[in-house]
Amino acid sequence: MEPSVLKPLRYSTLGGQLTDPAIVHLMANALSNPDLLSLAAGFTDNLALPLDLVKEVVAEVAARPGGSETLQYGMNSGRPGLRREVVRLLREFPGEESLQCDENSVLITNGSQQALYMATQVLCDPGDIVLVEKPTYFVYLEVLKGLGVRPVSLPSLPGGRIDFEGLRKLIDRLGDSDELKRLKAVYLVSYHANPSTRCIPEEDKKNLGNLLRTLDFALPVIEDAAYRDLYFGESHPARSIIGLPEFAGLPGIYSGTFTKPFSTGMKVGYTCCPNLDLLGKMLNLKGQQDFGTANFTQAIIETVLADGRYAQYLRKIRPHYARKLHILSDALEEAGLRQLGWTWDVPDGGFLLWVRAPDEFDTRFDAPFYHACIADGVLYVPGDLCFAEGSPYNFVRLSAGVLSNERLVEAAKRFASAARHSETI
Amino acid sequence: MEPSVLKPLRYSTLGGQLTDPAIVHLMANALSNPDLLSLAAGFTDNLALPLDLVKEVVAEVAARPGGSETLQYGMNSGRPGLRREVVRLLREFPGEESLQCDENSVLITNGSQQALYMATQVLCDPGDIVLVEKPTYFVYLEVLKGLGVRPVSLPSLPGGRIDFEGLRKLIDRLGDSDELKRLKAVYLVSYHANPSTRCIPEEDKKNLGNLLRTLDFALPVIEDAAYRDLYFGESHPARSIIGLPEFAGLPGIYSGTFTKPFSTGMKVGYTCCPNLDLLGKMLNLKGQQDFGTANFTQAIIETVLADGRYAQYLRKIRPHYARKLHILSDALEEAGLRQLGWTWDVPDGGFLLWVRAPDEFDTRFDAPFYHACIADGVLYVPGDLCFAEGSPYNFVRLSAGVLSNERLVEAAKRFASAARHSETI
Repeated sequence: MEPSVLKPLRYSTLGGQLTDPAIVHLMANALSNPDLLSLAAGFTDNLALPLDLVKEVVAEVAARPGGSETLQYGMNSGRPGLRREVVRLLREFPGEESLQCDENSVLITNGSQQALYMATQVLCDPGDIVLVEKPTYFVYLEVLKGLGVRPVSLPSLPGGRIDFEGLRKLIDRLGDSDELKRLKAVYLVSYHANPSTRCIPEEDKKNLGNLLRTLDFALPVIEDAAYRDLYFGESHPARSIIGLPEFAGLPGIYSGTFTKPFSTGMKVGYTCCPNLDLLGKMLNLKGQQDFGTANFTQAIIETVLADGRYAQYLRKIRPHYARKLHILSDALEEAGLRQLGWTWDVPDGGFLLWVRAPDEFDTRFDAPFYHACIADGVLYVPGDLCFAEGSPYNFVRLSAGVLSNERLVEAAKRFASAARHSETI
Repeated sequence: MEPSVLKPLRYSTLGGQLTDPAIVHLMANALSNPDLLSLAAGFTDNLALPLDLVKEVVAEVAARPGGSETLQYGMNSGRPGLRREVVRLLREFPGEESLQCDENSVLITNGSQQALYMATQVLCDPGDIVLVEKPTYFVYLEVLKGLGVRPVSLPSLPGGRIDFEGLRKLIDRLGDSDELKRLKAVYLVSYHANPSTRCIPEEDKKNLGNLLRTLDFALPVIEDAAYRDLYFGESHPARSIIGLPEFAGLPGIYSGTFTKPFSTGMKVGYTCCPNLDLLGKMLNLKGQQDFGTANFTQAIIETVLADGRYAQYLRKIRPHYARKLHILSDALEEAGLRQLGWTWDVPDGGFLLWVRAPDEFDTRFDAPFYHACIADGVLYVPGDLCFAEGSPYNFVRLSAGVLSNERLVEAAKRFASAARHSETI
């Protein structure tokens, strides 16, 4: 052993505390163990991915005069044409026709994840507080942890609606303990949420906007709308925080993505932030982190957005995921999971189920049920990962996205069998 | 105006200080003003970009059984196949055949820029010190500024070699003022460097390794080898810091890229870091920032690396850039720039010229010469941006990458004419 190996390596304060995010473990599990049927990974369905369409578009781009610009650096903020398409896309949602923003309010990012990270990095110092839902997107909890930020749950009513009386009290309490200045953002996953599958009703958003207007500082809301495009029937009627008059003048960061609805492997997301000061800070950070998302993948997505093939693909993919979700839900039901006291709703968008086990049931990584599932060859996301604090242990997140219909049925059987077995031990 | 607009928005300590990086300005200038002949942008040549090859590869991928996995999420660390190809590529450089690393030492990033950012974020707190060359890559100086880190110049001899006696004294001085604990990394641009166009001789690297071994803490070296593949004759004989025995056991971060040699628009770079503790910290940060670079662009590059089409393309592109550099240099010479006392070497790699004006000449953004160039329709990078401190004002960085041969000649004429004109005022 070289003597120098033993010398201490000094990391930054936060860098030294970085630990392996659960998302990385779960993705590696899913990718490296093909026998394990994964209801965990938030992957989309390989067989439904638009590979032929992408091939077609690349051939068109290659035939376009000056098409090689797509292999050249683009702008830090993203392709102007793609940013215009993002605005058009947002304005197509009901009630958002007159959304007050243009392409200069849009930033293209490496999936919506980079937008969430940058927004948090720009707003929060270590020790600051971000309000999150109960449950919330577990990867975002790890972003907060990595930046030393404290997640605090938004008070909620049974059923998941925001408890505004509780929120008022929480804000008063933070004020009393001189912690209100540490409160830096509210993070909402608002459409077919990961993991709760809920949509936040417009009334809750309006009430939140009205409450935030009473504060004597500007508290940004980060709205994560990653699954908004993946509705099954009609798009959810609630307007976004950047579209609601109750949020006018409040700093809002709306983040969406083309990963889930189009191609996770292209890693193109976007942020719309009409507050140009806040957007400018994110742009400056982006200029340091990578000075622009890959121009090539942006160009592909811009093309299909502009000529309608994106919308066409979505019309095909929405019933596909609706079917898969119902197949998973039906199979769990047929395997007798409801009789064991487990409950869930089948959502009208996305490809996730948020399943509640009986109260005393323990679904955590180290619990017998988790090991029983691994032994039976099925993987899920333990629900306790998705809570800021006071985590219940009896939830799981199941994804119908990645497995074939046959394998979904098989995975449901294995899952229910492990549940039955864990009941009796 | 909404009253709430006037309420203060509270950023994080560093977020609030973020300013527009020069790279973003320069890129936006180059992209938005086609009449301006840009010798500034570090862009590659659109016409030489491998668009037909990429089209061909995408069609092959689309025909491959299971090819749609390329549109799916990949691993946080990058495609295993691409990481193996990176190791193979590194081992092909002379003297690096037995490089001690495998695909588990490799991390795929969004260009090498993300690797530089993450390495610095993992290592440095605000107020820490990173040693940089004189001159150094100006975008990295902005990364340091954005993270609140102090760049300090490595002492150097006339001609650019490292002044080891000076470095010793600098380290002693830092020790005396109790600042040595703030010293967190050394950043080297080692092959056909941006902007100096120098290669660091192997002897300097060896001496640096030997000096670092005498310290009682492990000081990581970040080696930025972005232009290593773009040599004209033979690859530069100096081994990398991760290949040299003098660095064995020292933490080294080697960062390379497929942007400059293949496609800037695909934004795929890589890091090889045999110190798995340090790499692990970067991986964990990557897991939070975007949990993986776009799988699709990685798959394209993996394919051409594996079947030799990458090497073939490089054999075509190297003489192309050599020609362009010579055209620019010859045109500047013919336009009489050397007679005005300007000097430069034509490097044997990359596509940059690092040009020294007479001592009293001022090339900064606000100087008459800069405005004369804009008025004449030619853009350059002022050299003073590339220094940590004690910046001379009489350098410019010129890039032969982006303009056609005819436009290079025209740009050189404009540049020399502005230089002559600025002489006489």
